[in-house]
Amino acid sequence: MHWRYILKTIGVLILFIGGTMALPLGFALFTNDPCLLPTIKAMGTTLGGGAILAAIFRHARSETINQREGMAIVAVGWMAIGLFGALPFYFSGAPFSFENAIFESVSGFTTTGSTILTDIEALSRGMLLWRSFIQWLGGMGIIVLSIAILPFLGVGGMQLYKAEVPSPVPDKLKPRIRETAVILWKVYAVFTIAEVLLLFLGGMSLYDALNHAFTTLPTGGFSTRNASVAHFNSVYIDAVIIFFMLLAGINFSLHYQLLKGRPLTFWKDSECRFFLVMCMVLTLAVGVNIYRTVYPEAGQALRYAAFQVISIVTTTGYATADYELWPPMSQIILFFCMFVGASAGSTGGGMKCVRIILCFKYCYKELFSMIHPRAVTHIKIGGKTVPDDVVRSVLGFLALYMALFALGTLLLAGLGVDFVTALGAVAATIGNIGPGFGMVGPVENYSQIPYWGKWLLSWCMLLGRLEIYTLIILVVPEFWRK
Amino acid sequence: MHWRYILKTIGVLILFIGGTMALPLGFALFTNDPCLLPTIKAMGTTLGGGAILAAIFRHARSETINQREGMAIVAVGWMAIGLFGALPFYFSGAPFSFENAIFESVSGFTTTGSTILTDIEALSRGMLLWRSFIQWLGGMGIIVLSIAILPFLGVGGMQLYKAEVPSPVPDKLKPRIRETAVILWKVYAVFTIAEVLLLFLGGMSLYDALNHAFTTLPTGGFSTRNASVAHFNSVYIDAVIIFFMLLAGINFSLHYQLLKGRPLTFWKDSECRFFLVMCMVLTLAVGVNIYRTVYPEAGQALRYAAFQVISIVTTTGYATADYELWPPMSQIILFFCMFVGASAGSTGGGMKCVRIILCFKYCYKELFSMIHPRAVTHIKIGGKTVPDDVVRSVLGFLALYMALFALGTLLLAGLGVDFVTALGAVAATIGNIGPGFGMVGPVENYSQIPYWGKWLLSWCMLLGRLEIYTLIILVVPEFWRK
Repeated sequence: MHWRYILKTIGVLILFIGGTMALPLGFALFTNDPCLLPTIKAMGTTLGGGAILAAIFRHARSETINQREGMAIVAVGWMAIGLFGALPFYFSGAPFSFENAIFESVSGFTTTGSTILTDIEALSRGMLLWRSFIQWLGGMGIIVLSIAILPFLGVGGMQLYKAEVPSPVPDKLKPRIRETAVILWKVYAVFTIAEVLLLFLGGMSLYDALNHAFTTLPTGGFSTRNASVAHFNSVYIDAVIIFFMLLAGINFSLHYQLLKGRPLTFWKDSECRFFLVMCMVLTLAVGVNIYRTVYPEAGQALRYAAFQVISIVTTTGYATADYELWPPMSQIILFFCMFVGASAGSTGGGMKCVRIILCFKYCYKELFSMIHPRAVTHIKIGGKTVPDDVVRSVLGFLALYMALFALGTLLLAGLGVDFVTALGAVAATIGNIGPGFGMVGPVENYSQIPYWGKWLLSWCMLLGRLEIYTLIILVVPEFWRK
Repeated sequence: MHWRYILKTIGVLILFIGGTMALPLGFALFTNDPCLLPTIKAMGTTLGGGAILAAIFRHARSETINQREGMAIVAVGWMAIGLFGALPFYFSGAPFSFENAIFESVSGFTTTGSTILTDIEALSRGMLLWRSFIQWLGGMGIIVLSIAILPFLGVGGMQLYKAEVPSPVPDKLKPRIRETAVILWKVYAVFTIAEVLLLFLGGMSLYDALNHAFTTLPTGGFSTRNASVAHFNSVYIDAVIIFFMLLAGINFSLHYQLLKGRPLTFWKDSECRFFLVMCMVLTLAVGVNIYRTVYPEAGQALRYAAFQVISIVTTTGYATADYELWPPMSQIILFFCMFVGASAGSTGGGMKCVRIILCFKYCYKELFSMIHPRAVTHIKIGGKTVPDDVVRSVLGFLALYMALFALGTLLLAGLGVDFVTALGAVAATIGNIGPGFGMVGPVENYSQIPYWGKWLLSWCMLLGRLEIYTLIILVVPEFWRK
């Protein structure tokens, strides 16, 4: 392993994060925001830390990056970002103890949206801007990670997308990343600007519009308001956010195709079709379930059902209603949605629709082969045969996901967190959703989680965000052998 | 499909069940039990029904049974047994409405142990004996099913055990079943007699001893007492039952080896080792967790922890404590134990240890192959390579299990059952445990579950008991095509 090169790359990444702190810094300077001093301290520390690392290893060169090095950069890089991104929070003092600052920062960069803040509106506007901005940055990272990096690292079936972005140099990452990244970021930026405008036209202040666009597109879900999106209580704003959450939950390479003038791409893609149909069916199911039991009008029921289902299934995590007061079926649907998640290649988390589809097809194939033991069948997605190693990789991913969910829940319950909260909090963090159930429901927050529980959940967020494999592989002894 | 032959077999099976009603009948005659009349009615109907079916198809002959016919016999047979076994309950009147009688009967024959009885002790002793006896009969069925039938049907990785019972005629079931069955039933009977004696020596009445032995060995868990085993409040009785629950949770072919004088078989078998170590580790974890928080003395904590962990992990379902009052970690451990279950080839339910082991090894292999993409590795259990199709079958089983668990929970919640109860009830029935969480906790029962919920959970019990595949395959259209 070229550790020197890896550390140099991490150093550059830290420098970049330090640079992005110019946004809250500028905001603080112009609006005389109290976050000025903490931001200066944080930016100084971050730039300094990054510069030292990059300087020490400035001579490290590597023409190619292999799989292992790629994974190490991704995993260590995301940890470093979480750490340094926490500094503005930490330096701003209460309620940000060290673990709270780390939790909030990791929740931001992994676009989870879980918060330890009991009173969001008490935070300075500059600090809230940083909080939203790190989700937006996290979203940028994820798009590139899931479309341009993970497929080449062979992570959890993401190889499915390898074919879509043909690489001239297999197993060598560097050449393609930059150009793919730039294309996808353009799409991301266009959507963000569009959402800011539409929200602003709907009566949001420019500041709120910017913050919410920053946290919708990465399916993050941090809001500037204690009541989340419910604060604005506007059908128009709900509709705009629903629309952009859906966009954010779709594979970004499809958006790119669309912008290139191929409008049918969405419906041709089986994962996207599954995702959209699922959103529709579950919205109807929840809508029928909450009509009359919670909301007297059908239109109301449908509005809140659509918002909440799409918020959870895209793993955004905004709330316009306290779904814990809804009937059991709606709660169970939302709970299971936390596992399903959005499309691969989107900014959403969870297991991803494509893996669920593959798993269903796999089960059907197994049943079929019991009836016809000698028949040779292949699993196809979108008309193309899925290679066996991808299927294996996906099943391994699902098993690891469930096993780590179980382990996380067990450990959190071991810290004294109750049954429902433990299940809900781990599902909501490993799936990068945000709010869970019980003590961490949509109108509550993670402040009451015990000290070690916050660390545990921070790891869950990272695990989910890095598609399990990339992080868990670091604890396999084989990884460290020469 | 030789439907005529299948129906004839089912007819004979029903006749057999009718015959077994001689036990409660004899008991009623000798003790003047009020169950006499309902039992006569039920026995008459059952023998009549079985005789008609067997007579109509008496000329049906089949030298060989193929896979599909085997599965149809198993699935339809178990349904028929559940139906006719319910008659004594149904004819005895309240609280046994039709759905309650079916629920109790299916819960018995699948050795689940969930009950709709709010006051068990109010039932006549003859009826309670039938209730225990059907679990014992169910256990006999399962041993043969899992060791002598399913391996040849290629169900959910049970092929693993094919090698252990070499068959001269592959895919032809009849020849071997009888001799394997007789051997295993001897073991089962010996254990039952031993437990009756040991319980009787511990101060239980012969009646209670017989009933509890009838429901321990099949990991059933029906008790004759409202407070379950807690009623006897005896360390000795707890210890005896723990011992036999452990035996019942181990592959019965290992017991056979043991009785043939090979005492090391247990430790040589990797599944058995995993099972015993898991029981020990979880007992310790729960013991430490409930020490001081619930029980002031360490010995007490260990006693109740051991009983409850082993009761749940072997999927028996007896209770000596209300584990819903225990700290969250203990509850979460017991909840996850419901999924793990006992060994394959035992009378226990759940996913089975061997599948969990295989799944872990599979995940490790996937991680390994990410590090060494070109290395060819095989999964081994007990030193032997597991064929790829068995691994695939096991993963398909686990995925189907989780998917059906999710679907069941969703449907039950749709009937208005709360979040925790829905999760707990479906986990406890599909895993054939008995008591769950929430409304169906260890000191409560299934009487409050809505009408359709009882039907749903009866299907869950059958699904779990028939290793998912055998039942679910009936809804695959391909199964019915020629």
